[in-house]
Amino acid sequence: MRSSFTEEACKHASLSQLKDLCEEIRAEIFRTVSVCGGHLASNLGVVELTVALHRVFSFPADKLVFDVGHQCYPHKLLTGRADGFSTLRKFGGISGFPKRAESEADCFDTGHAGTAISAALGIAKARDLKGENHSVIALVGDGSFNNGLVYEALNSISILKTNVLIILNDNGMSISPTVGGAHEILGALKEGTADAPRDISFLESFGLHYMGVYNGNDLDELLPALEEAKERLKTGCVLLHVTTKKGNGYAFSENAPEATHGISPQKGTGTEYSRVLGEELCALAERDGRIAAVTAAMTDSLGLRAFFDRFSERAFDVGICEEHASVLCAALATQGIKPYYAVYSTFLQRSFDEIVHDVCGQDLPVTFCIDRAGVTGEDGETHQGVFDLSYLSFIPNLTVAIPKNLGEFRAMLRLSASFRHPFAIRYPRMGASEEDILPKTPLEIGKYEVLHSNTSDIAIIAAGERCLSIAERCVRRAEAAGIGITLVNARFLRPLDERLLRSLPQKYILSAEDNVLFGGLSSALDRFYAGSGKQLLHFGFEEAFIPHGTVEELFRAFGPSEEKLMAAIEECHARG
Amino acid sequence: MRSSFTEEACKHASLSQLKDLCEEIRAEIFRTVSVCGGHLASNLGVVELTVALHRVFSFPADKLVFDVGHQCYPHKLLTGRADGFSTLRKFGGISGFPKRAESEADCFDTGHAGTAISAALGIAKARDLKGENHSVIALVGDGSFNNGLVYEALNSISILKTNVLIILNDNGMSISPTVGGAHEILGALKEGTADAPRDISFLESFGLHYMGVYNGNDLDELLPALEEAKERLKTGCVLLHVTTKKGNGYAFSENAPEATHGISPQKGTGTEYSRVLGEELCALAERDGRIAAVTAAMTDSLGLRAFFDRFSERAFDVGICEEHASVLCAALATQGIKPYYAVYSTFLQRSFDEIVHDVCGQDLPVTFCIDRAGVTGEDGETHQGVFDLSYLSFIPNLTVAIPKNLGEFRAMLRLSASFRHPFAIRYPRMGASEEDILPKTPLEIGKYEVLHSNTSDIAIIAAGERCLSIAERCVRRAEAAGIGITLVNARFLRPLDERLLRSLPQKYILSAEDNVLFGGLSSALDRFYAGSGKQLLHFGFEEAFIPHGTVEELFRAFGPSEEKLMAAIEECHARG
Repeated sequence: MRSSFTEEACKHASLSQLKDLCEEIRAEIFRTVSVCGGHLASNLGVVELTVALHRVFSFPADKLVFDVGHQCYPHKLLTGRADGFSTLRKFGGISGFPKRAESEADCFDTGHAGTAISAALGIAKARDLKGENHSVIALVGDGSFNNGLVYEALNSISILKTNVLIILNDNGMSISPTVGGAHEILGALKEGTADAPRDISFLESFGLHYMGVYNGNDLDELLPALEEAKERLKTGCVLLHVTTKKGNGYAFSENAPEATHGISPQKGTGTEYSRVLGEELCALAERDGRIAAVTAAMTDSLGLRAFFDRFSERAFDVGICEEHASVLCAALATQGIKPYYAVYSTFLQRSFDEIVHDVCGQDLPVTFCIDRAGVTGEDGETHQGVFDLSYLSFIPNLTVAIPKNLGEFRAMLRLSASFRHPFAIRYPRMGASEEDILPKTPLEIGKYEVLHSNTSDIAIIAAGERCLSIAERCVRRAEAAGIGITLVNARFLRPLDERLLRSLPQKYILSAEDNVLFGGLSSALDRFYAGSGKQLLHFGFEEAFIPHGTVEELFRAFGPSEEKLMAAIEECHARG
Repeated sequence: MRSSFTEEACKHASLSQLKDLCEEIRAEIFRTVSVCGGHLASNLGVVELTVALHRVFSFPADKLVFDVGHQCYPHKLLTGRADGFSTLRKFGGISGFPKRAESEADCFDTGHAGTAISAALGIAKARDLKGENHSVIALVGDGSFNNGLVYEALNSISILKTNVLIILNDNGMSISPTVGGAHEILGALKEGTADAPRDISFLESFGLHYMGVYNGNDLDELLPALEEAKERLKTGCVLLHVTTKKGNGYAFSENAPEATHGISPQKGTGTEYSRVLGEELCALAERDGRIAAVTAAMTDSLGLRAFFDRFSERAFDVGICEEHASVLCAALATQGIKPYYAVYSTFLQRSFDEIVHDVCGQDLPVTFCIDRAGVTGEDGETHQGVFDLSYLSFIPNLTVAIPKNLGEFRAMLRLSASFRHPFAIRYPRMGASEEDILPKTPLEIGKYEVLHSNTSDIAIIAAGERCLSIAERCVRRAEAAGIGITLVNARFLRPLDERLLRSLPQKYILSAEDNVLFGGLSSALDRFYAGSGKQLLHFGFEEAFIPHGTVEELFRAFGPSEEKLMAAIEECHARG
């Protein structure tokens, strides 16, 4: 069956054969995602669209840029990756996102929202400069259409004077349902309301020819539309507006597109930090009318559904607009509101300037709840949260906290509620559920905790639940081998607990963090202990883009693993 | 005269007295900027608008948020800062940008583009939550209207359900003339073309009531328009579109708005790095058809005018869209084009995610030419370039170069032309002109240069022209005092010249960089020398937001000054 998964098949099949091919692709995606996890609903939605693209265009000669890339599985299946598809998102296997290194048919790596039109324009401009003559297509979901980067690219069309085909894949969803003015405009277009002609001609004033709205799950409609778009592309930029149904073809997924947007192969044990975030913010908001919550299109995965339901007037999902979310929080904070901005580590990168310029520059009490910190696993390079400690560590006025478990996370959220400066808390997805109890002594800013005390030569300073649990296991194994270890919970990267660090008598200081090994805890300790004569050994992630795999595999291959830490302990002990 | 610079005066004056007040304000701004430097044309353009705002609204009860803030001088003069105005942009004096710390009438600090509507929405939402009842106004230049953040905020209006007045101050310019689709739409509105009604109603579909176009330099038109806007604001968001003339009232400034946008009190001696950038990129482009240049609305101040004139098909000014510029460069690079993205250090922060995710994540040969690195002086906190080494130092695949002079900068640009990976070169505004000669030995990636060699106990490792010239002076003073110093030019932050660093026999290692003292050169050396027994002493900028002042004042007060370095040398020498 898989031998039919080729562009050739798309080009030469009859329409009814094409429809069969779509069903086969759909079945293959469903089968694979059921085992490997991945993005189900979004990929099921674009099967017909992708098959139609491969019938009308020719890849890799033509270039297809995905926005985000949650829709690239059918394209992967049709471009030589069907045979390896059972390794999807597995360590060493096929990536769940477009990857130039994987196939010539993937022309631009993506993962974050809003990049595709910029990228397509750049590729097209290069084509023009080189005198080449292929088509360049950006496939963009409607969720991305409220992102500022998309708008910056649209603004550029009249500057760059090149031709790209922008396919707006409108399924009414990003990960959460799409929100905001842009969404309403797309709604008017789809429904053909009285506003539709105006909105069309507005889009055209950016230099786009608008074609729509087509049913993107119907090959009979799609194929002639794409042929027409290809023709029009010779003389200008085209925006082809198609509607698709997320999860198309599978009733469960169609009915629960949010739940089936991303599917994990296994849920893992323990409790999600996001659950504690949601609970605690609700409890805080109950007592304190100043507490507000802000998210950028990820209400559910950040644990904020209950908050949004109960405190809707203080809950803001601004769409995939991470920058705007930060400025909004800064402004709320100037007026005495206490905003909590919940966001994934990797996506907060998009807001770096606003953290510096708007929040910390004004020393405003905004709390950043940074979920999916450290490696996130199967999504790979573009989604790992291994840079946050480095890009937050030098920003003046910012406190950076790293909870050791769910209980400490809860305590940090409470602490931040009365804190009058910018506050960042970074945490991984999963925590051990039995640890959801508050710390025994009240949490203080910049105060560390000694978990094991020993007068021997070796101390481990570890940050965050994953690294502390690795360190705990090492401490136990070392003890069994007669090596006593001091273990410190480095709850804050900023400020350091200088008094505690100064008091450590150990000769060997081992650090562990799930961040790259520069700019985070390791650099802070290097600075603190410079010239002290202590021997420092740091364990964290390699300064590299970490590929996909399970969290455990990634720790072992690239990170602060138990094995590496244990080997260092034994070596330090042997050296004495 | 200055006693008339009050809101009360605006409220109670006759129309003809108001016009006189405008002339007095204009004269005061011209007089002050002639001495202190500052933003002339943009402030002259909004005198009438600001006076009208103070007549119709009441500050600080009402809130006025400036976008960027190049237009805040009249507001400062009218809100209690006329007497201190002669200290404008001077160390310890009045800031050239809005500052909450300076006056209650400044409700939100700004400096980077596109934040005002987000901020106004947040302030208004907080007002609603607190049951208050004042007006919130965002004053935004048309240049910012192509920035993605503005669009993200507009998208949010229908989500936030609050009322703000957005005044679009349309002078057809950012620092360079405004470009792109958004600009063309504004043009249609101004000219009242056939497209105008459509563009108006499109803006309204974001939830804005559009009012325009009014002559913003004419009080007779402005006052009733503002009164109407104030009334409409009770029931919704209003976009008031006014046109103003940059430099209004001064013929020279009107005719040369780019040249008089920002005026330096004195130009300083030496040559601008931007001149060398422009020359060298033209020379490279002459020989190599792959070379392209990209800027975000700052062609002239980055030295790229000649390149844009000579190689217009490979020169792209995308407007104030720093994020899009990076993705565009990444995409061009995937196709074999060799883009140079020239940008100010502080504005490149806006593109941090795209540097990580799009350029370095794909290991693409984009060269970032990072101008105005280190402290920039009179613009203050929001414009200092003291974070770039910290936010670039941990990004995988990125090479970070810091030239010691104009000649070395030229050599780095040449080197990057054949380099196949991401490359960043960061440099200050001014260089010593006599140093514009190429290095004697060919430049190699990661290779340092020993400028003075001595077997004594003290070595200085310094990066960049400013710190190296301070270090040179210290070396000479130390020599005169009989202390021999080794001085190393740390041309690259990434990669370090590990071989050279390892070979240094000195006990005391002093470092100097014009960056905050964490995450940059100091941290790299702390890591490299950890456990070596060497004594490290680092000189750089305090981890703080550095206020305005001359570059020299800021180095002395907050930075790696000659005095501090010399004192450390003497102390090390005394300790032996």
